Amino acid sequence: MASHSITIAVDAMGGDHAPQREVEGALLAAEQGVRVLLVGNEELLRAELRRHAQNHPAVDIVHASEVVAMADAAARAVRQKRDSSIRVATRLVRDGKAQGVVSAGNTGAVMATAKIVLGTLPSVDRPALAAVFPALGGKKVVMIDVGANVDCKPEQLVQFAVMGETYARLMLHVKNPRIGLLSIGSEEFKGNELTREAHRRLQNARMNFVGNVEGRDLYNGKVDVIVCDGFTGNVALKISEGLADTIKHLMQEALSSTIASKVGYALSRQALAEISKQMDYAETGGAPLLGVKGICTICHGSSNVHAIKNAIRLTAEFAARHIDEKIDSELSGLATKEQGHLPAEAFTEHSDE
Amino acid sequence: MASHSITIAVDAMGGDHAPQREVEGALLAAEQGVRVLLVGNEELLRAELRRHAQNHPAVDIVHASEVVAMADAAARAVRQKRDSSIRVATRLVRDGKAQGVVSAGNTGAVMATAKIVLGTLPSVDRPALAAVFPALGGKKVVMIDVGANVDCKPEQLVQFAVMGETYARLMLHVKNPRIGLLSIGSEEFKGNELTREAHRRLQNARMNFVGNVEGRDLYNGKVDVIVCDGFTGNVALKISEGLADTIKHLMQEALSSTIASKVGYALSRQALAEISKQMDYAETGGAPLLGVKGICTICHGSSNVHAIKNAIRLTAEFAARHIDEKIDSELSGLATKEQGHLPAEAFTEHSDE
Repeated sequence: MASHSITIAVDAMGGDHAPQREVEGALLAAEQGVRVLLVGNEELLRAELRRHAQNHPAVDIVHASEVVAMADAAARAVRQKRDSSIRVATRLVRDGKAQGVVSAGNTGAVMATAKIVLGTLPSVDRPALAAVFPALGGKKVVMIDVGANVDCKPEQLVQFAVMGETYARLMLHVKNPRIGLLSIGSEEFKGNELTREAHRRLQNARMNFVGNVEGRDLYNGKVDVIVCDGFTGNVALKISEGLADTIKHLMQEALSSTIASKVGYALSRQALAEISKQMDYAETGGAPLLGVKGICTICHGSSNVHAIKNAIRLTAEFAARHIDEKIDSELSGLATKEQGHLPAEAFTEHSDE
Repeated sequence: MASHSITIAVDAMGGDHAPQREVEGALLAAEQGVRVLLVGNEELLRAELRRHAQNHPAVDIVHASEVVAMADAAARAVRQKRDSSIRVATRLVRDGKAQGVVSAGNTGAVMATAKIVLGTLPSVDRPALAAVFPALGGKKVVMIDVGANVDCKPEQLVQFAVMGETYARLMLHVKNPRIGLLSIGSEEFKGNELTREAHRRLQNARMNFVGNVEGRDLYNGKVDVIVCDGFTGNVALKISEGLADTIKHLMQEALSSTIASKVGYALSRQALAEISKQMDYAETGGAPLLGVKGICTICHGSSNVHAIKNAIRLTAEFAARHIDEKIDSELSGLATKEQGHLPAEAFTEHSDE
């Protein structure tokens, strides 16, 4: 969908190949109707734009003097680098100059910055990262949390379920998303302390909770949303990346071993490319940090131009659909319905800036 | 390796397709030199053997009157069904009539039975399930724990590391196995409470500990042993199964979509079959429960004949190499070296029978 009226701030210094891929991705997204503010070293970004001999009218530069490196400890980087590209880009969202921010930089620093600068929604205990997995039959599955919270409490998993459900409804157009809890057996008594208590709470929440799901259900489309703690979710995400790469590698090796299989490979190349595309995380672009006031999408450090472009478009769509406000109203409603008390007052946290 | 002198007890009533696959698997293993005691309903097993018109001299039947169903709660089944095929088979090991036991039955019941009937090794806190994953370059990786302990303490993860190392040395013939701790980033401060403390302890243990590994390192052969809690390990195992199945499914679909790709598929079929074999868990057969006094291997409920046969052979090899005794002496040594106290006395737990 075109979103001409939406402006997205892009941390142009974050990724492993910054600013080249960020700049190219921004130009492609601008061609598709998103206005982009590239945030980072102005001179560098000007030069990169010149290299493309393109000065797209919908791409502007906002200067930031500092850069958070991948190896920087997140907490310290956030405290000390007040003029980092991540921070300046996030501030643009807080100040209403952009409707969302995209970064392929240091994930910990991006999350911490979003929490500090944008603040957490009043109804949310802890923001969480949501990733979309491809499933059989062209379906998509939202997994939440994939890395924001390594040690979780059961009530946080219930909040993740609500955020994931909102994602599936708004963005994947699923009417009544089926929610599954990632565990190690379908019976409710199976799992660890965290999942057993979360299971009980999810059963009592007004949601289409279908029970525990297992690792194999990530790809079979049995559910639309999979809820888990950020440690398990991050391991799951990276196993998938690793295994898909391994299978691609094995296929290339095996299919170039004999004349027959070489010819076979040539003939089936298009079909195989189609599969690769389905498995490719670059198609989705990035994972939104849900639960903050505003829209923040985090990309893989090694994102290619295609992934950056898709992340910018995704973020514009999140912004156009006001997913943050929807999550807040869903969670406030849940609190009222389930715990019998009034929704948390919509107080605004004091910014540290 | 042939192990003519080794006898393995097989729970013939446990799997989803019992006793047919267990009986066929036993006959194949017997042909390869393992003596097998099939444990279960004698009449049923006699009939199944007759169906094969084969009375292999190395396959005998031991009667058991009860069966633990997959849906049975493990703890209750173990308490109430004293004459179950799982229990009778495990008793044969305790009484020296077999050197190992194999079951494709209710995993929880098999583990509980092994702990009660065989007992835990004096140096071991909690037994753990070890599974072998295929990695690039024909390598294999031991993952431990894949489901025996859902909530773990850091010191238990150190014990799992020792057990996994012993597995890699004895069974996979790796001289100085590289040990990795499954986490969500290579830096030691990344991870959850459990892994951060386990990391510290593993660094202090006399082991070839290479640090944290991530989900993507399961298949790249970076380490020989991956240590994790049983919840994370079980999720990892099942994601791998699910994703490999999904990719196979997508390939079959894509490769039958056009004439060119159909021809391509025909020509590359052999290469693809080779990959499937590498990814196939049936090749390994089963996961040993390490840390008990004796050898106990647990198979997937849906194991085919090939998987049962391989599990029986694997168990015979574990027994021939006395992996249980090796683990006990390694862990006793670790306690002396690292904690400065004497090895735990080799007391024998009182059996409840």
